[in-house]
Amino acid sequence: MVIVMGQEATGDDIASIVAVVQAAGVEAFVSRGVRRTIVGLVGDVTQLDEASLRGMPGVREVMRVSTPYKLVSRENHPERSTVHVGGVPIGPGTVTLIAGPCAVETPQQTLEAARMAMAAGATLLRGGAFKPRTSPYAFQGLGEQGLRILAEVREETGLPIVTEVVDAQDVALVASYADMLQVGTRNAQNFALLQAVGAAGRPVMLKRGMSSTIEEWLMAAEYIAQRGNLDIVLCERGIRTFETATRNTLDVSAVPVAQRLSHLPVIVDPSHSGGQRDLVLPLTRAAIAVGADGVIIDVHPHPEQAIVDGPQALVDTDLGELAQVMRDFPPLLGKTAAAALTV
Amino acid sequence: MVIVMGQEATGDDIASIVAVVQAAGVEAFVSRGVRRTIVGLVGDVTQLDEASLRGMPGVREVMRVSTPYKLVSRENHPERSTVHVGGVPIGPGTVTLIAGPCAVETPQQTLEAARMAMAAGATLLRGGAFKPRTSPYAFQGLGEQGLRILAEVREETGLPIVTEVVDAQDVALVASYADMLQVGTRNAQNFALLQAVGAAGRPVMLKRGMSSTIEEWLMAAEYIAQRGNLDIVLCERGIRTFETATRNTLDVSAVPVAQRLSHLPVIVDPSHSGGQRDLVLPLTRAAIAVGADGVIIDVHPHPEQAIVDGPQALVDTDLGELAQVMRDFPPLLGKTAAAALTV
Amino acid sequence: MVIVMGQEATGDDIASIVAVVQAAGVEAFVSRGVRRTIVGLVGDVTQLDEASLRGMPGVREVMRVSTPYKLVSRENHPERSTVHVGGVPIGPGTVTLIAGPCAVETPQQTLEAARMAMAAGATLLRGGAFKPRTSPYAFQGLGEQGLRILAEVREETGLPIVTEVVDAQDVALVASYADMLQVGTRNAQNFALLQAVGAAGRPVMLKRGMSSTIEEWLMAAEYIAQRGNLDIVLCERGIRTFETATRNTLDVSAVPVAQRLSHLPVIVDPSHSGGQRDLVLPLTRAAIAVGADGVIIDVHPHPEQAIVDGPQALVDTDLGELAQVMRDFPPLLGKTAAAALTV
Amino acid sequence: MVIVMGQEATGDDIASIVAVVQAAGVEAFVSRGVRRTIVGLVGDVTQLDEASLRGMPGVREVMRVSTPYKLVSRENHPERSTVHVGGVPIGPGTVTLIAGPCAVETPQQTLEAARMAMAAGATLLRGGAFKPRTSPYAFQGLGEQGLRILAEVREETGLPIVTEVVDAQDVALVASYADMLQVGTRNAQNFALLQAVGAAGRPVMLKRGMSSTIEEWLMAAEYIAQRGNLDIVLCERGIRTFETATRNTLDVSAVPVAQRLSHLPVIVDPSHSGGQRDLVLPLTRAAIAVGADGVIIDVHPHPEQAIVDGPQALVDTDLGELAQVMRDFPPLLGKTAAAALTV
Repeated sequence: MVIVMGQEATGDDIASIVAVVQAAGVEAFVSRGVRRTIVGLVGDVTQLDEASLRGMPGVREVMRVSTPYKLVSRENHPERSTVHVGGVPIGPGTVTLIAGPCAVETPQQTLEAARMAMAAGATLLRGGAFKPRTSPYAFQGLGEQGLRILAEVREETGLPIVTEVVDAQDVALVASYADMLQVGTRNAQNFALLQAVGAAGRPVMLKRGMSSTIEEWLMAAEYIAQRGNLDIVLCERGIRTFETATRNTLDVSAVPVAQRLSHLPVIVDPSHSGGQRDLVLPLTRAAIAVGADGVIIDVHPHPEQAIVDGPQALVDTDLGELAQVMRDFPPLLGKTAAAALTV
Repeated sequence: MVIVMGQEATGDDIASIVAVVQAAGVEAFVSRGVRRTIVGLVGDVTQLDEASLRGMPGVREVMRVSTPYKLVSRENHPERSTVHVGGVPIGPGTVTLIAGPCAVETPQQTLEAARMAMAAGATLLRGGAFKPRTSPYAFQGLGEQGLRILAEVREETGLPIVTEVVDAQDVALVASYADMLQVGTRNAQNFALLQAVGAAGRPVMLKRGMSSTIEEWLMAAEYIAQRGNLDIVLCERGIRTFETATRNTLDVSAVPVAQRLSHLPVIVDPSHSGGQRDLVLPLTRAAIAVGADGVIIDVHPHPEQAIVDGPQALVDTDLGELAQVMRDFPPLLGKTAAAALTV
Repeated sequence: MVIVMGQEATGDDIASIVAVVQAAGVEAFVSRGVRRTIVGLVGDVTQLDEASLRGMPGVREVMRVSTPYKLVSRENHPERSTVHVGGVPIGPGTVTLIAGPCAVETPQQTLEAARMAMAAGATLLRGGAFKPRTSPYAFQGLGEQGLRILAEVREETGLPIVTEVVDAQDVALVASYADMLQVGTRNAQNFALLQAVGAAGRPVMLKRGMSSTIEEWLMAAEYIAQRGNLDIVLCERGIRTFETATRNTLDVSAVPVAQRLSHLPVIVDPSHSGGQRDLVLPLTRAAIAVGADGVIIDVHPHPEQAIVDGPQALVDTDLGELAQVMRDFPPLLGKTAAAALTV
Repeated sequence: MVIVMGQEATGDDIASIVAVVQAAGVEAFVSRGVRRTIVGLVGDVTQLDEASLRGMPGVREVMRVSTPYKLVSRENHPERSTVHVGGVPIGPGTVTLIAGPCAVETPQQTLEAARMAMAAGATLLRGGAFKPRTSPYAFQGLGEQGLRILAEVREETGLPIVTEVVDAQDVALVASYADMLQVGTRNAQNFALLQAVGAAGRPVMLKRGMSSTIEEWLMAAEYIAQRGNLDIVLCERGIRTFETATRNTLDVSAVPVAQRLSHLPVIVDPSHSGGQRDLVLPLTRAAIAVGADGVIIDVHPHPEQAIVDGPQALVDTDLGELAQVMRDFPPLLGKTAAAALTV
């Protein structure tokens, strides 16, 4: 941490800062210049409150230098991690395709979607039983009935299940069915939920908040990690910007940046970022090309009848092209498409 | 709702749309032009899924015309509402000052802050016992102990209490102490929490999500209202933009816009939007001048020792000026400063 | 400037940095810590390229401490400035009302709008002869004919003229008619234009770019100042954010922040920020209350016939309320409404 | 265009709208519903001012349906265009690599950079002689001397030149040296400059404004096209968002969206969007994978000595990997790397 003193700061102001800092067991280096003085702090600054320092007399600015997250940071864990979900790897050596319906509607629709997913090369099945919806009047998902459908489809197809949990009180229930818990963009700073999934003993996919900085996203992951769970996969899904031509703005740069800062795998959701079917394949190619460790894609057998997000779901005729993307692109990145667990 | 067909749309495409729409009990008006056809829908369109319509063949765009919220909408409730918190009104006739410490730290600090609040004209006490923090390593609040301190200070000063709840599982506990429940910006789309506070039988202050549109904010209020609670106060607290000179960008225009769209009272948090002590008074004046029904302000007896957000708390020497703003500005808007309940 | 070295930085890396810095005549203070080393620079760092330093081996971050602008900075000029336009002051002691039509359309319309402006208390007349329009098919203004109309109306009413210039090649022409040159939001980083108006010998109103940070806005002002012209008035007019309910998001906090950083007067444009007639008066009150040194407002005798931006223009029936705002609010800020020059 | 009337609209209000619309030669279809009336307009609505319609009594909303640009629209020109620069194609069949130094500093540096560019497979040389800089104290480019250096390097290497023009007054000068004129992000709505380059008889590369919507970007292109020049290449270079970990947020989705809306080629600038050397190659791969028709990349023989943007320039050791990306990725998109003109 670096504390920049204002021109008006007195010797006493500087001495007070140094005293506070040293009391927290941190070294303080004072650099006096012609117009300004800078106090450089070295040591474990986590006990120092940045904002309170900023409020001390004479202080002009407090700049943090070290990262505020630890368990998910790559600084102390240079090797990138691989997370296994029902035996399927998500990590640096592979590109994992997760696909399925946005919402579980019926057993038939879910099974058909799962078969579509497999046809495209997916090794994990996505599907929402609890849906966070902007409107209270919109379909909120089938709840536990949806989880049961997912479990049946897993039985039938062998695909492990990724499904969202939206309430800390449902975590145990969802974890009893799911192979991987998903935390959605609207819950990116729902700390009670993050702590609950951190304690649930299941891998977690953490979507980036639509207005979270990369640092806030990693801090959210730290909440999960702190509860003892490091099986976390980060998922970039588009951020909110002024552009309205797309549902969100897919921030592809966030993939290499997050991979540089954290050892966790990073995947991309091209369906929810673009929000339009004809953007899904181009964004999938971009995601793999930028280095993503996987993609999560909506597919639907009859998107015109879909209750949620039909217009962004891939359909039958798109699957061949998706399968080809999964064959052609990963090798160029020194990766392979993630295979299903073989017994 | 208006459906705009693409140039390539066939007569069959249009007929399908009309059939779907009429099946939902909605009237469809087809306007055929030289290059485009427009289908205007009139009736209760809440059962129609906008996104699914958008996915039908030949459809180019679907535009919503009516508001998606009802209970909080001003269309059906032209008179602006007043919410009472422990007898203190928040509504169109008054400007209510809510003040207190960002976080409850000790009984002494909370009591001193409450006295500061009263000196400035506050009739409600704010104070956080459960704090949502970006970092899991930061102080998370005193929890129930903090609620007990707040209750003691209410006993001592007579000020009703406004305090945040961050987890649906804590709602009953917090409601047993608080006069008003606060839902924070990070939980603006935590629907489980919104539904829980909607059922808790206490007035609710709903902060705008830092990346919520005004429409999403009102939809979040609708979640609360739908559970039978219309005692909701909206609180603008700054949105996330590219500007980094302030903590958030206070969107003052949101006050008259939300008041035009909804009958609910709208207040402003000048402390968290600016994030700097010397911005609090200017932004308070702006908030009242733009027509806000109240303001909620951090005060702290010793901000340099504050655990959370010290730099934005007003101090003793600011209180006179705040009191004067509370005297001078409301009358220019045809309002009075909200008085405490007198027995 | 503070240079933070990465963990991997060697002694040689640090020595190279110090050498480069000292070669530029700047002092370097090296603070070695357990994990990181910090190099604090003190002196005139304007000759050092931040980005190039960042590219040197071992460097992790370069943080600027001093402001990059000088002539417009308040550091070296603590007293806030007053700019005079045709004898009318804009500065800390006053609130100046500038009003008129968005675009000059006819002599009759311009004269009527000027009389409306005066009725509301305006002492400067705004009106566009050169209009920057998003579409090449939209009305681009009357050009010199519009300037002549403005001059005639000034003759008739005595109101000095504020008008926009959009092309460096037109600066001399516009300056030969105008009392104050306006640089619009789309030209906020049109450096050729900024330099040309800096050399034109007329006061300049510099609108903030719709995506300019406050620092970039002040740097744009520095371009003008550097050409010898310090008669600059900054105008906040709303920034681009994700919110679409208003045309732009008025950043009222920018007013006190810019006034703290710069000695230049700061005014607000409530018409273009909100983009809706019924927001103009609330935002005008907010602007004055936050401490703006003036406001610039669209008025139009027949807004339904206006060629440009009719929906945001105030009409006859709004003028009484605007006049009252101009009477009531400035005194609460210790200011007076700026009077016209009296001979 | 669709006009939505408010609930309070009278029969007279609707009749007035219809009259205004028909007077402009546009058909009006009135759809009366239970609560609202919708007026659908069909025909050439370019003469109707959207904003003025919005200001008419009873009008609640005006929604545009057709695109506001024509010459650059793909609606009337379904085949995607190829632009030739000194014989080098930029268009749907190819991926063109444009590379060179951000700023021309010396003949030696420019020649070395050009050789680096060629080694990586570039067939066009970029290099700035006129640099738009945020600070007036920063290096503004060598001006005509820089253009002469570029011309010499073209002589030596055969690479056609792409270079920026920042002032309408310099267009003739720059066009006398350059093979392609570049309009930078800060001038994206400098309409005088757009018109000047439209009349200059040279292909134009139009960077997206850092806060321009895709529609505004296409409108800017329309300004150029309207002056008779359709040899326009659109360049996505990152937009301004709340994220500060990267210099800008590269909006890869803008590539397929702009290609769907316009027939013009679309390329990407991965150097200026990320602003960091180690992001350039990942973003280049993403750009090609999403379907970009080319990329423009900074290279510098000695980036640590670069005057402008050194940290984002690729260096010698990166060129092999860039060359390989240019070999591997285009074929997966059915494209070839654009070859130089061979005589």
